[in-house]
Amino acid sequence: MGLFTKDIRNMDDLFIHQLKDVYYAEKRIVGTLPKMIDKTASPELKQDFETHLDQTKNHVKRVEQVFELHGVAAGTVMCPAIDGIIKEAEEIAGDVDNKNVLDAALIAAAQAVEHYEITRYGTLIAWAKELGADDCVDLLDQNLEEEKEADEKLTNLAEGSVNRAAA
Amino acid sequence: MGLFTKDIRNMDDLFIHQLKDVYYAEKRIVGTLPKMIDKTASPELKQDFETHLDQTKNHVKRVEQVFELHGVAAGTVMCPAIDGIIKEAEEIAGDVDNKNVLDAALIAAAQAVEHYEITRYGTLIAWAKELGADDCVDLLDQNLEEEKEADEKLTNLAEGSVNRAAA
Repeated sequence: MGLFTKDIRNMDDLFIHQLKDVYYAEKRIVGTLPKMIDKTASPELKQDFETHLDQTKNHVKRVEQVFELHGVAAGTVMCPAIDGIIKEAEEIAGDVDNKNVLDAALIAAAQAVEHYEITRYGTLIAWAKELGADDCVDLLDQNLEEEKEADEKLTNLAEGSVNRAAA
Repeated sequence: MGLFTKDIRNMDDLFIHQLKDVYYAEKRIVGTLPKMIDKTASPELKQDFETHLDQTKNHVKRVEQVFELHGVAAGTVMCPAIDGIIKEAEEIAGDVDNKNVLDAALIAAAQAVEHYEITRYGTLIAWAKELGADDCVDLLDQNLEEEKEADEKLTNLAEGSVNRAAA
């Protein structure tokens, strides 16, 4: 978006901008999760990531439905936030040798991704309600709930086995 | 950290690395919040941000205490995640003209920052427990709780008045 123009004039523009941001983020995550799956040692963690990859592909489709319901073409904007979160995940993964410690680091990285999505969907839902776009709320809420569940599953896996194996 | 070396060999190294990451993040937030305060139109939001700036300065001190308790020198590592989140906040702020819409965008940006910290402190606490660093847990937990409260206050403010004024 514009360095020299003020492209966002109202809440609807802001909502669409944020939707494009999350659309970009979900697509980047679809591209990144397979690399994380490859690096994972714990079979449960691998399974968790694989399940979440399927969910994420579905999130992309739901966001596309929201664009359609809202009457705008699906599109992306640059999202330095998710780029930075993923860059940090890749850097830390490259820095760890021990497989069990790497699993702990990968969980932390994935949870940073989940939390980014949780905050963005939370915001989108609040804005959609304010705009009276109730048809969009339900789809966004399904994505939000799955992100929260994914985050919780990772916490349980970290605290239940992965961190212990690493320590 | 090393592109060609594997600097993180165990959970203690990983914990310290993550602590340096959050130390960098807190310091960047101390530098960024005043700019957000300047841009805010809503007096309640301005007040919220000012309170959180004071809290954030205190978070920096608590993280320094954790370094000390853990017997390592305070230091930072590059944190592309928080850099990206803040870059995105600055870009969106530059894109919005209407003051009320800008407030809604600033809340969303601040909540993305809060969620980054929430996930990092959650991870640090779990790792500190696993490492038996119980003395660090309490300090990290105080920061975590304040981040969660800050996030909740922003949600209430957004849904209570700011989004309505913007819509």
